[in-house]
Amino acid sequence: MDIQIDKRTIGVNFTRDGKASACVWAPEKQRVTLLVNRKDKVPLQPDEFGYWKSEALAIKPDDKYQIIIDDRDPLPDPASLSQLDGVHEASRAVDLGKFQWTDKDWNNVPLKDYIIYELHTGTFTEEGTFAGIESRLDYLVGLGVTAIEIMPVSRFPGGRNWGYDGVYPFAVQDTYGGAEGLQRLVNSCHAKGIAVILDVVYNHMGPEGNYLDAFGPYFTDKYKTPWGRALNFDDAWCDGVRRFFIENVLMWFRDFHIDALRMDAVHAIKDFSSKHLLREIREYTDALMAATGRTYYLTIECDLNDTRFLDDMQEGGFAMDAQWIDEFHHSLRVTAGEERSGYYSDFEGIAHLAKAYKDAYVYNGQYSPHRHRKFGMPTSNPGEQFIVFSQNHDQVGNRMLGERTSELVSFEMQKLMAGSVLVSPYLPMLFMGEEYGETNRFQYFISHTDKELVEAVRKGRKAEFEAFHAKGEAPDPQSEETFRNSALQWELTESEGHRELLDFYRTMIALRKSHPALSNTNRNNLDVICDEDKNIIVLRRWERGHQVLCLMNYAPEANSVSGLPVDTSWHCILCSADRRWLGNGEVPQTIGPDGSVQLPPESITIFSNR
Amino acid sequence: MDIQIDKRTIGVNFTRDGKASACVWAPEKQRVTLLVNRKDKVPLQPDEFGYWKSEALAIKPDDKYQIIIDDRDPLPDPASLSQLDGVHEASRAVDLGKFQWTDKDWNNVPLKDYIIYELHTGTFTEEGTFAGIESRLDYLVGLGVTAIEIMPVSRFPGGRNWGYDGVYPFAVQDTYGGAEGLQRLVNSCHAKGIAVILDVVYNHMGPEGNYLDAFGPYFTDKYKTPWGRALNFDDAWCDGVRRFFIENVLMWFRDFHIDALRMDAVHAIKDFSSKHLLREIREYTDALMAATGRTYYLTIECDLNDTRFLDDMQEGGFAMDAQWIDEFHHSLRVTAGEERSGYYSDFEGIAHLAKAYKDAYVYNGQYSPHRHRKFGMPTSNPGEQFIVFSQNHDQVGNRMLGERTSELVSFEMQKLMAGSVLVSPYLPMLFMGEEYGETNRFQYFISHTDKELVEAVRKGRKAEFEAFHAKGEAPDPQSEETFRNSALQWELTESEGHRELLDFYRTMIALRKSHPALSNTNRNNLDVICDEDKNIIVLRRWERGHQVLCLMNYAPEANSVSGLPVDTSWHCILCSADRRWLGNGEVPQTIGPDGSVQLPPESITIFSNR
Repeated sequence: MDIQIDKRTIGVNFTRDGKASACVWAPEKQRVTLLVNRKDKVPLQPDEFGYWKSEALAIKPDDKYQIIIDDRDPLPDPASLSQLDGVHEASRAVDLGKFQWTDKDWNNVPLKDYIIYELHTGTFTEEGTFAGIESRLDYLVGLGVTAIEIMPVSRFPGGRNWGYDGVYPFAVQDTYGGAEGLQRLVNSCHAKGIAVILDVVYNHMGPEGNYLDAFGPYFTDKYKTPWGRALNFDDAWCDGVRRFFIENVLMWFRDFHIDALRMDAVHAIKDFSSKHLLREIREYTDALMAATGRTYYLTIECDLNDTRFLDDMQEGGFAMDAQWIDEFHHSLRVTAGEERSGYYSDFEGIAHLAKAYKDAYVYNGQYSPHRHRKFGMPTSNPGEQFIVFSQNHDQVGNRMLGERTSELVSFEMQKLMAGSVLVSPYLPMLFMGEEYGETNRFQYFISHTDKELVEAVRKGRKAEFEAFHAKGEAPDPQSEETFRNSALQWELTESEGHRELLDFYRTMIALRKSHPALSNTNRNNLDVICDEDKNIIVLRRWERGHQVLCLMNYAPEANSVSGLPVDTSWHCILCSADRRWLGNGEVPQTIGPDGSVQLPPESITIFSNR
Repeated sequence: MDIQIDKRTIGVNFTRDGKASACVWAPEKQRVTLLVNRKDKVPLQPDEFGYWKSEALAIKPDDKYQIIIDDRDPLPDPASLSQLDGVHEASRAVDLGKFQWTDKDWNNVPLKDYIIYELHTGTFTEEGTFAGIESRLDYLVGLGVTAIEIMPVSRFPGGRNWGYDGVYPFAVQDTYGGAEGLQRLVNSCHAKGIAVILDVVYNHMGPEGNYLDAFGPYFTDKYKTPWGRALNFDDAWCDGVRRFFIENVLMWFRDFHIDALRMDAVHAIKDFSSKHLLREIREYTDALMAATGRTYYLTIECDLNDTRFLDDMQEGGFAMDAQWIDEFHHSLRVTAGEERSGYYSDFEGIAHLAKAYKDAYVYNGQYSPHRHRKFGMPTSNPGEQFIVFSQNHDQVGNRMLGERTSELVSFEMQKLMAGSVLVSPYLPMLFMGEEYGETNRFQYFISHTDKELVEAVRKGRKAEFEAFHAKGEAPDPQSEETFRNSALQWELTESEGHRELLDFYRTMIALRKSHPALSNTNRNNLDVICDEDKNIIVLRRWERGHQVLCLMNYAPEANSVSGLPVDTSWHCILCSADRRWLGNGEVPQTIGPDGSVQLPPESITIFSNR
């Protein structure tokens, strides 16, 4: 049996006319039995390659079921679609086909127009659910973002987790609203013109509720990952593991109408097969696009600075659509005053930020002191293949105290950092709440039930922060308070300071969308001048006769910049120091005939030639 | 400091005017001192990236030296050029530049014309030295081979080893004749028109005499290899390890005039860097080719069936020149009657052999039962990128008893297997002695001094053969007798049976070289018909109007084949059943007008259209 494009073939599934089937991967086992509602035993029949099947199964949606391998204790289904009672309990049968979609006219946003808003379902709203997100969609439309990126929703232990401890990749977190809740949210997003990116984790499995070993060789000892055992993508029996995740990709696109995936830390997918897992995911995604006529994007988090991930297949690449570049973030943060400890130690600030604008990869072959090796390669991939941000869940939440940028830099600098991201030739991404200067921290939280594990996580977090020489006590990740304290405070959007910051973001996003020199992602029509002494970057971008000069002064004092081009007549179209956004009002109106201009402290000023 | 094309820059080296310098890689150490002739201490000066150096050093060729790290016991130099007193003792300074080369008019054999003869220096002749090989060059010229492939010569413990336990990649085994002996051999080969391929091991280090840990992080725990710890090619500090091996590549080509490398088991080089080690080796080799005007080939042993290793750089490949295909061997052996156990279990015999002729990779995407996964990808790389053989050191020596093909199959089958290799569109390789049916086995032998290690090797070999359900007792690898019993018996070449087999090889090689349809490596001008019931393959090859039909009958009985093309007038140009080669003499002279012909048992018959 092979992967099918048009339907899920592993786990328990229903046909349109309500017939149920089951398929479990459990190679080299003697017997596999389905236990339905704790009483009815249905033996599955062995098929090729370690699969066990039953067609015309007596199971209905919402029935609970477990799997018995070789007469041992019943276990949840690795391909479960719902774990209503938790990660250790019975799986619940779900009919993914019953949702009434109304988005048949939806077209995905073109990749180059993605303006991404990353959010965590549990803390985005008070409800902490998909329905909660729905209630804020008009706000997001007003802000101008074109895509939301939802942190992982695959079933994790308890109700509090960033999502990277998921153990049932196919089961949508029940406390968020489950499969139907997510389908409804996507449908609503499409109705409002918003694309949905889902964050998925294919590099490891969470530590609690992970029963995969009982089923088959999901893991290999050939490689190590920072988060424990490596998933088996190239060792004996790997086909079943690869299929498990490929089916997962197809399910999100096909059954949930997800527009793009963000695959977590793909550098930890260790695969020396002649066809890398990501390339195989690309091929199946392409086949699904051909079958549905829709467009799906594959984006990745990858820290290898290796264009193989982005390059076309004929160039030997995996043809991913876009990747995160943390190096832009690190450079920007150091430029904005972040202490150079831990992984920030590799970043020199403004010179590296200028390099990131120009080259995407900061480390593209030179020696990296933090890594103790030469690192990376140059890239000529277009700007729309790179996603940049001034903060994200990791960069905020992996600080010991989880401080957002709003707590770390001045109000003026917050605007400047937002502008720095939004004038880049890359796809910009915001982290929920940054647009109005949320003051609540975003902290690391879990709700495991295994006490030893909780202790291990506490210790692990502590050890992690030693590299940053952080002072003070980290919040307890297991405490519900830590979770509550990380939620957005929507009332802030109405209060002074926050309201004006939000207006700045809206204006800046609107400008990016409307100005031809900013809305394109052409890295060729771009130059960067960097004044390291003054901490100033001049970014010039142009497109079909339209030009902008983006003047970014990261210094705490006003600064003059000279030598600007005077071959055209420039006028100021935006300055973060405008009083409208609570700035000092010293907005430069034009560039002097000598090519010089005075920039307010910690400001971005944009001149246009039209 | 960077890698230099024109000279070795690590270890102890001499300039043309006799000045000595030393360079040792020992990152994060406090002090590095050279101890010359056990008395003179020369402190080295720290340089960038963990290197320690001294210029204008008081050391002469043949002086012994050791390296003292942080005041601990003196150790041999990892980049030593000679370990005259063994792997645990002092290194000896060698001036590689003093050999008087006379091969300045030498041009490498074009890759497609390589007919390779693999040999093991210690057992090829009674002397067991490079000088011994020299004494047999005329024989090899007479046989018709165009390249010898020398099993690894990097310094190993004692005097008996296949070479894969080497621990000083730069030191030529002293018992073979050391650096000068190898230089002299290469020079003589070039004088006789023979290219020299050197087998080198960049995937692991031998277990005894390996002091690398005392110097730096040569190894990483991120990956496992079948032979112990993985070399550190992508972890922190890997640049020093990568350089160590890149310098090694350059040394062989530049200072030893080696024509090609055969890199051992490169699938065990675990490297997720954006630039794979092999690609970097390619780039440095290309730079050296540009500098010297000579051509050097990079060949690999690789079992991944992944064209990335062969593909051009613009296709994202590592641009290796050629790779071994063991699958041709396995298919051929099973076709010739080998039991399908161990890794042979994946091979169906003649259908797979036919596939190997056509597709190079037998497993090019389908399910491999032995690996328990789908494996490989299709290749359209030209035939000269693949090296095939009916036996090699591994396939003979890794049998429990080390039986050569001559002991396992009939005389007729030996000729047929030789023919099967030599009519392929790939580069053929012989293993020393097969051409005259050497009867001595080629067994696994070592001469370690560490008793525990010897026991471990004995046990390891035993465990390995359990997969093959082998009967009887394996010879003791540590015993000198095992080594002696593996040597060639040159007197056999004069005795009946052996003499005729040798003549068959000579004739077959000469035919391959002279017939345009056989001397090319064009995989497009080829078709294969396979009769699985009769165990017959019909291979047709053509080139510029020349055609051959190679009819191979692997069955122990005469067999008729029909349906051959009759659009041209065929005549027989070779048949292994000829009485000249002790066959039954039932040589088919032509193909009947109905396209049928009778083939002798276990025979190869070649028809030509001209």
